[in-house]
Amino acid sequence: MSYLVGVDIGGTNIVCGLVDLEYNLLKTLKQPTDRHLGSDHVLNKLVSMIDELLVSAGVDRSQLKAVGAGIPGFVDPKQGQVIFNSNLGWSDLPVAQIVSEKLGGIPVFIDNDVKMYVFGEAMKGAGQGAGVVHGVTIGTGLAAATVANGELYYGSGYMAGELGHVTIDGEKTPCGCGLTGCLETVVSATGIARQAREALEAGRDSLLRPVFERDELTAAEVSKAYDEGDALAHEIMNYTGKVLGKGLAYSISLFSPDVVVIGGGGALAGDRLLKPMREVLERSVYKGYLERLTIKIGELIDHGGVIGSAAFANSNVNK
Amino acid sequence: MSYLVGVDIGGTNIVCGLVDLEYNLLKTLKQPTDRHLGSDHVLNKLVSMIDELLVSAGVDRSQLKAVGAGIPGFVDPKQGQVIFNSNLGWSDLPVAQIVSEKLGGIPVFIDNDVKMYVFGEAMKGAGQGAGVVHGVTIGTGLAAATVANGELYYGSGYMAGELGHVTIDGEKTPCGCGLTGCLETVVSATGIARQAREALEAGRDSLLRPVFERDELTAAEVSKAYDEGDALAHEIMNYTGKVLGKGLAYSISLFSPDVVVIGGGGALAGDRLLKPMREVLERSVYKGYLERLTIKIGELIDHGGVIGSAAFANSNVNK
Repeated sequence: MSYLVGVDIGGTNIVCGLVDLEYNLLKTLKQPTDRHLGSDHVLNKLVSMIDELLVSAGVDRSQLKAVGAGIPGFVDPKQGQVIFNSNLGWSDLPVAQIVSEKLGGIPVFIDNDVKMYVFGEAMKGAGQGAGVVHGVTIGTGLAAATVANGELYYGSGYMAGELGHVTIDGEKTPCGCGLTGCLETVVSATGIARQAREALEAGRDSLLRPVFERDELTAAEVSKAYDEGDALAHEIMNYTGKVLGKGLAYSISLFSPDVVVIGGGGALAGDRLLKPMREVLERSVYKGYLERLTIKIGELIDHGGVIGSAAFANSNVNK
Repeated sequence: MSYLVGVDIGGTNIVCGLVDLEYNLLKTLKQPTDRHLGSDHVLNKLVSMIDELLVSAGVDRSQLKAVGAGIPGFVDPKQGQVIFNSNLGWSDLPVAQIVSEKLGGIPVFIDNDVKMYVFGEAMKGAGQGAGVVHGVTIGTGLAAATVANGELYYGSGYMAGELGHVTIDGEKTPCGCGLTGCLETVVSATGIARQAREALEAGRDSLLRPVFERDELTAAEVSKAYDEGDALAHEIMNYTGKVLGKGLAYSISLFSPDVVVIGGGGALAGDRLLKPMREVLERSVYKGYLERLTIKIGELIDHGGVIGSAAFANSNVNK
């Protein structure tokens, strides 16, 4: 029997998962990335983790068909190279080749972590069986990717899908990308907390004031205040959902997906964001799209990256 | 030697072109569509035109490798079927099969006319040699299509690319699609003329008043008044260019093209639209995209549909 390993390399933790050829996740292993020790250390650790995972599952290395790894930042999947990752401090690093050599020649494929997550949802999650899946992850920032007929859409320079960096009329917050008023300055955990902070600084009355004064204001706190009926939290979540709808209206009209998957921590906000988002879509997307479209919360929020990476490796090794 | 024929079936005229395998257009033939005589008549006429074109060029039917035809409206290119075309009055019509049979089995491929045009620009025009080409045609309406690595991006239901039907904040004009304030209610010949008409109805002073009063207000007249320094015409072209920029900012961030091609009659407006468009792109698209991107006026404005249809047929017959 053959197996795959999917890996999610984050700034804080590495998660490895043993996955069968039907993309069922059989076992996982999670360890700190220790990025401060450098890329050599991190990639050696990754290989040890894969071996440990295989041993614990009673699987021999010879049964390992391929390994996939999702990594944040700019990744060239064809060359198997991390072009730039500010968080890990890696640049022009041929990760696929290095890890493959350390594993005695087992094929290794890498891609951007959001692309891997969306690929996972398309293959085994909320988009399974659909022709075109557009996935949006809402976390610290906002990112998107599209899988059409089992293939990720890349665009020039593998740069497609920066829905987080389209600008929104009337928004003035400077974004890390150099622009002003990017969608992710509103629709992200950071953006939700920022909106609350700015309103409280301006003197708005809200249940959020105590956490603001303890400097503990987060998107999760805004969600909590929303559930307690706080007016400011309602305004913020409504507006954030509407801005998400504005952006998605473009994604839908340009990519014509069968399924839109909302993932990342922001998916936990559920209808607090999705209800106002749907209201905007109803009035700003041609009904021919909405009739064929399903919008879903991701089904693989926790392990989509691991499953997606394994599926991506399998799909590439079969080419 | 083998040849291709590309066809552009419009509501008014049919244009057939003889094209070699390097996609050079050798000869064209244009005749009225006579759509009121029905689809049988139109398709018989098309076949006669192809034969006439071949005879006049001294090419034998046996040298004809494939025929491609671009048709407005919803087309299913895989089935070779026109799903719906309001202008010609065709629905669920298997055009590719009918024409192929009439031509004694020569392979025939059809697709939407804008997709064919953009495919032509990607293969032999402004996007030749580029990996990802996003094309926008500005005419009576506005449509878009994307060619990535020699393949059209279709989306679910072949419905991708409706950049003309994303809604623009603050716009209130009802659109034929059922929405309000669609991008093409502004960025199109119709939209430009409408803006001028509404301003003149509201009493605005402008060089356009005489043509307005003769009921001869068109986008071309607005362009002419622009060149004569008319303030209203400048406002309208500036605003139209800005709205085009807002829409294209999404196309660029989502598709990451190497080349954006502006085609259709609106391309004749040139910098009157492109200058304000570029200003919007500079402040609303991540510079990493703009650095790798070239924005061009289409090079095949007149015959892109014919060349694209021929290239599309060749690309499909080789599959």
